[in-house]
Amino acid sequence: MLEKIKQITLQNLRYAEQMLLQDVGAMSHAQLNQSRGGATRKPYDFLYECSLMNQRMAARFRGEDPGPRPYPEGEFPTAPEELCDKERALQMLRTSFDELRAATEALSPEALHQPLPYGQGQYSAFELVGFAVSHLSYHDGQLNYIQALDGDGAVHWDFS
Amino acid sequence: MLEKIKQITLQNLRYAEQMLLQDVGAMSHAQLNQSRGGATRKPYDFLYECSLMNQRMAARFRGEDPGPRPYPEGEFPTAPEELCDKERALQMLRTSFDELRAATEALSPEALHQPLPYGQGQYSAFELVGFAVSHLSYHDGQLNYIQALDGDGAVHWDFS
Repeated sequence: MLEKIKQITLQNLRYAEQMLLQDVGAMSHAQLNQSRGGATRKPYDFLYECSLMNQRMAARFRGEDPGPRPYPEGEFPTAPEELCDKERALQMLRTSFDELRAATEALSPEALHQPLPYGQGQYSAFELVGFAVSHLSYHDGQLNYIQALDGDGAVHWDFS
Repeated sequence: MLEKIKQITLQNLRYAEQMLLQDVGAMSHAQLNQSRGGATRKPYDFLYECSLMNQRMAARFRGEDPGPRPYPEGEFPTAPEELCDKERALQMLRTSFDELRAATEALSPEALHQPLPYGQGQYSAFELVGFAVSHLSYHDGQLNYIQALDGDGAVHWDFS
């Protein structure tokens, strides 16, 4: 049963990755670089945040300390200038997903449920991947909303 | 271990519920009723979809057949006129979450991993709640994006 739960956890991560990457792929640099209305973040900013989260979780799963966050506590990160570029943002995302997937696969079905330090608490890799998947879906919903604001109501996901 | 996995599954659902309900609570009827730009759905439409999904999953978990979807295959549902109302939309959401939570709690830690018919396939309640949580987060990201479009950059979540 624990092996099956590990496979479902990995599959959920894979689906969240595919949805996010395909939606970024379907958008223009101008869409990804735009802060709209009163208080929205640029998609590049939250894609950078997703990449950092993937990398930092992967480090914890490997038993490493990812060090302090590269942005102030209680704030959301802003993408550095060089990552406000569609190909580079996609590259960082892809690499971070490869890292998180590999680090999750490397855990035994039992180790997936052992507590690890993360943020202010202790969580299992199983809980953390669940959190990452929800967080990725949250931002993917925002990408889809932006597409629709610009008249693109198509579904860009292909899980084949 | 299976009991712990059940508790984490329920907690993830509870968090997704709190985030969504608190974000709806922080928005006006005008925001929830507006289809913006080229191709966006009204928040009332996707909140109705979330309520229906909760109810239909709960029925499956109880061993019941929820019957055909009340909207055409391959389309997204549109909220009926009477549910384009903030208090009624919140009431339907709350009731549907109560139902899904109760139906999940009623499953034994082992039964949570038994396949059930859903849509075109067979999935365990564990997989389906994971899907529901991602789907709820996806739409919650959209609510937060709409808040920010209107200048509201505050975080409305309180898990205390």
